[in-house]
Amino acid sequence: MDAEHKFRVRRLKMLDKSKGFIELLQQLSVCDSVSDKEFEERLQEISSYGDDHLICVIEDDHSGKIIATGSVFIEKKFLRNCGKVGHIEDVVVDSAARGMQLGKKIIDFLTDHAHSMGCYKVILDCSLENKAFYEKCGFKQKEVQMVKYFI
Amino acid sequence: MDAEHKFRVRRLKMLDKSKGFIELLQQLSVCDSVSDKEFEERLQEISSYGDDHLICVIEDDHSGKIIATGSVFIEKKFLRNCGKVGHIEDVVVDSAARGMQLGKKIIDFLTDHAHSMGCYKVILDCSLENKAFYEKCGFKQKEVQMVKYFI
Repeated sequence: MDAEHKFRVRRLKMLDKSKGFIELLQQLSVCDSVSDKEFEERLQEISSYGDDHLICVIEDDHSGKIIATGSVFIEKKFLRNCGKVGHIEDVVVDSAARGMQLGKKIIDFLTDHAHSMGCYKVILDCSLENKAFYEKCGFKQKEVQMVKYFI
Repeated sequence: MDAEHKFRVRRLKMLDKSKGFIELLQQLSVCDSVSDKEFEERLQEISSYGDDHLICVIEDDHSGKIIATGSVFIEKKFLRNCGKVGHIEDVVVDSAARGMQLGKKIIDFLTDHAHSMGCYKVILDCSLENKAFYEKCGFKQKEVQMVKYFI
């Protein structure tokens, strides 16, 4: 990959399933059986939220592969005088495309979206290992994440 | 308050603004200017998500006041084979009603809702101070929460 690459961030599209989007998610967690029909239905469900749930990707123009992604959804609260909060989820950069600031591009895109939607803050959960990366993106550690699994 | 109290958990209703719902939220964070119109509009926005965004409350039958609340919204993902995740937010129990397990009632209600909606996990962020309470509710610490404020 050379300096001519633009690495534009854009919204996820239906065709991206055939461009390695699901394989990219597999680098983050389990995602081994999503049919074309399931992909289409889930994308339609998410799209029905309009700007309140955005999934973005970066496509490598040369290979035609999706090499980075992330999502943000806008939570509407009563707290903070009917405030809104952006929740960033599922950020991953292809292991072969690290070191090109693609992760920062994704985070900046999602953060800017949350800001433009009128959120008073944007939050995310990460491992201690990834904390330094998010600090470079302007985030600060605040609370601890608690989880309960059903499976 | 006596043992006859049922402390049923139910969904937030329009009338709850006049029963101290906003004052209860003030015990958690800033919420000092929400007009009746703003409350109505925000409740309608949230209700339009149906079971994907639920705010529950406990009303004290004797005083007619809302003394506990919490919310959960269901995030639809591609990860985990088009999995869903419940996000619990804005849990608060009236400072005069502590020690009656109302917080656990709220968390159990929200957790059961996420489970019934087909989520594979439910998550929340809390202070280190409140970690032990959530552990009693069956949660485990996993990641760290990062935040970026716009104001």
